[in-house]
Amino acid sequence: MTGTRLDPWVDSYAARTQGMTASEIRALFAVASRPEVVSLAGGMPFVQALPMEQIAATVSRLLTERGATALQYGSGQGDVVLREQILQVMADVKVNAHPDDIVVTTGSQMALDLVTRVFCDPGDVVLVEAPSYVGALGVFRAYQADVVHVAMDDQGLNPVALAEAIAAVRSSGRTPKMIYTIPSFHNPAGVTQGPERRTEILTIAQREGILLLEDDPYGLLGFDGEPPRAIRADDDQGVIYLGSFSKTIASGLRVGWAVAPHGVREKLVLAAESAVLCPSNFAQMTVSDYLATQPWREQIKVFRELYRDRRDALLGAMDQLMPAGTTWTVPAGGFYSWITLPQGLDSKAMLPRAIAALVAYVPGTGFFVDGQGRQQLRLSYCYPDTDRIREGVRRLAAVIESELDLAHTFGTTHALADSIGQVNPAPDIA
Amino acid sequence: MTGTRLDPWVDSYAARTQGMTASEIRALFAVASRPEVVSLAGGMPFVQALPMEQIAATVSRLLTERGATALQYGSGQGDVVLREQILQVMADVKVNAHPDDIVVTTGSQMALDLVTRVFCDPGDVVLVEAPSYVGALGVFRAYQADVVHVAMDDQGLNPVALAEAIAAVRSSGRTPKMIYTIPSFHNPAGVTQGPERRTEILTIAQREGILLLEDDPYGLLGFDGEPPRAIRADDDQGVIYLGSFSKTIASGLRVGWAVAPHGVREKLVLAAESAVLCPSNFAQMTVSDYLATQPWREQIKVFRELYRDRRDALLGAMDQLMPAGTTWTVPAGGFYSWITLPQGLDSKAMLPRAIAALVAYVPGTGFFVDGQGRQQLRLSYCYPDTDRIREGVRRLAAVIESELDLAHTFGTTHALADSIGQVNPAPDIA
Repeated sequence: MTGTRLDPWVDSYAARTQGMTASEIRALFAVASRPEVVSLAGGMPFVQALPMEQIAATVSRLLTERGATALQYGSGQGDVVLREQILQVMADVKVNAHPDDIVVTTGSQMALDLVTRVFCDPGDVVLVEAPSYVGALGVFRAYQADVVHVAMDDQGLNPVALAEAIAAVRSSGRTPKMIYTIPSFHNPAGVTQGPERRTEILTIAQREGILLLEDDPYGLLGFDGEPPRAIRADDDQGVIYLGSFSKTIASGLRVGWAVAPHGVREKLVLAAESAVLCPSNFAQMTVSDYLATQPWREQIKVFRELYRDRRDALLGAMDQLMPAGTTWTVPAGGFYSWITLPQGLDSKAMLPRAIAALVAYVPGTGFFVDGQGRQQLRLSYCYPDTDRIREGVRRLAAVIESELDLAHTFGTTHALADSIGQVNPAPDIA
Repeated sequence: MTGTRLDPWVDSYAARTQGMTASEIRALFAVASRPEVVSLAGGMPFVQALPMEQIAATVSRLLTERGATALQYGSGQGDVVLREQILQVMADVKVNAHPDDIVVTTGSQMALDLVTRVFCDPGDVVLVEAPSYVGALGVFRAYQADVVHVAMDDQGLNPVALAEAIAAVRSSGRTPKMIYTIPSFHNPAGVTQGPERRTEILTIAQREGILLLEDDPYGLLGFDGEPPRAIRADDDQGVIYLGSFSKTIASGLRVGWAVAPHGVREKLVLAAESAVLCPSNFAQMTVSDYLATQPWREQIKVFRELYRDRRDALLGAMDQLMPAGTTWTVPAGGFYSWITLPQGLDSKAMLPRAIAALVAYVPGTGFFVDGQGRQQLRLSYCYPDTDRIREGVRRLAAVIESELDLAHTFGTTHALADSIGQVNPAPDIA
């Protein structure tokens, strides 16, 4: 990938490293992080909205009063007080569990890694939405699992397509190990499974005896009504639920969790101990004290309203400015809208020109393992303010207009893209 | 292992889970954590010696002034300011590197995991000291690597035995991928490689073209003279160096690092992103600000003197109280002494009786993959105060005395041990 120095260990790497690929657009994103660029690319929560003074006071008190515990090794499964508090947080999505069912992880990314480590032999199949979260695709590849994409519609993962995909996998002699889904406020698709859809998907997973891996980092960040009921609320044996404080409190703490059936949970703890010994007591107790002393539900409401305003700014600007033939999803929560460009345009080929026009996005191909997504891209509205979002859309719309002019003059822009190669955005920006 | 509930996923786990085994003595250690038990088992640093008020003030200022960064996602490779500071810390063991060569990890346990992930296919051989760090053995097993033990002497890893082991592995048709060594203040053996020994080991690794993985959590915690020169100081292409702030600052922050050759470092960053996206900015910036604002070298001196006093208490009490036939290593730094019981005694069989006598240790078998270590055990002096250490040795000596009486009456105590089974202490207590 990058680097031209001779690597003396090039013949020594494990086979799994072939699935670990660097992003060829990292250099572009380094440029994209310059302040003059409006980035609609990253999935960074707007942590500036947090009550910093109160958090500082909370952490200061924690260190002064219980520093000897906060700065010490803890249990591999995670702090028991925090695990009890996580039950209260999950009550909002109707997940009912016991503190023993929970494994605290270094962000829910680590939970994804551990679940895959525990279940997937090389060649096992994971069924994932098309498109899906970049960081999950990276984990599945790193464990040499085969990712099989399943089509989505405006209600997310399509059950008919899911059943067909399972049948096709089985008839090819392979083992479908997991169905990986983000039911609420999907990254990157920006859609949400309704209650009936969730039931249909769970029924298929149960009938086929396939583990359902439910990733729910955005579940509490819906813009209207109650948070969607988690699939795990209806099956405590067939579903592993992944939660995260990255978007409801702060991503820099790296605290997430998995809820798993008893036997699985035991294996996850062993895997966690092998991976990191234990999650940080300092981070866990910071989260725990924040939950105990700060109005965390009100803070989530602050985030919800902030992100709703930004979503409205994005949708409003797109309605007003996007060239005909451009379509997008209307997210009811979370961070992302999924854009389909007019026929013949290529989001990967267009990216350098977008960045030259001082706006950044993530091209669609990064959210697939099979080259789909050239006509798509992801826009995030979580981080820039509403004025910046509108300015970003204005710039992007102009870039698309000029791409359309190019396409009308020279035909498709796909050929240009091939000189850039496979696009795998780094997970931290996607 | 534990639990008798039926696991519906029992046939679905990946093959690697067979290498993930729970400790059958966990229940005993739960008892051992009661305050009336003197625990000489755990490797917990004495973080109570830290200046809590100053750390609280440092973190409070961090959150107030740079909270938006501290609570946000960061780079997968780790904070660049911290990586520059790590160079200063490593200067004490003469490691010379560039910030780009460093990957910050969630404790150096994660660095162990990533290096193994990047290099070891199932069946690859890792050469490790006999005995070796429990957490490293767990990682190697989790990646289905074959651990081959190499004998140690009072200077640590024995080069003649190493060369023989490599030859034997090669002639068996297997691939020796790494030599894993803890050169300074070894866990659990309590010995240190001298400069000539390090050169001999490095020469073998270079001649054989085998990667040397140098694990150095205790390097700055020597009791006499200068910190030992790291092996990495003499080879920046053939050695991966692992460092940690767990023992020099605080284990609860979970901040460690790897220094690796360029090509390896790139792969480690990709693996790290897949594993946890990024290390915690909150923890990294806490370490960084601590290093920038607190007299960290003086604090390490405080730790060194504290641990030296405790080592002296342990050795003095053992000299005075241990039954004839008991021998031990004399550590020049770090946390541990390695005890050999009189002939015929079994440390695993003895453990329940020791805990009944209100003293705990780690039986030797946990530090091997092949059943060695029945006559050995590890004592740590890092956490209890000197009075408690002396009381612990007094209790342990009495237990050994009564075991000797039993052995003289009934022969060896080995038979009793077989009812307990394989002993794998959880890494967080070993």
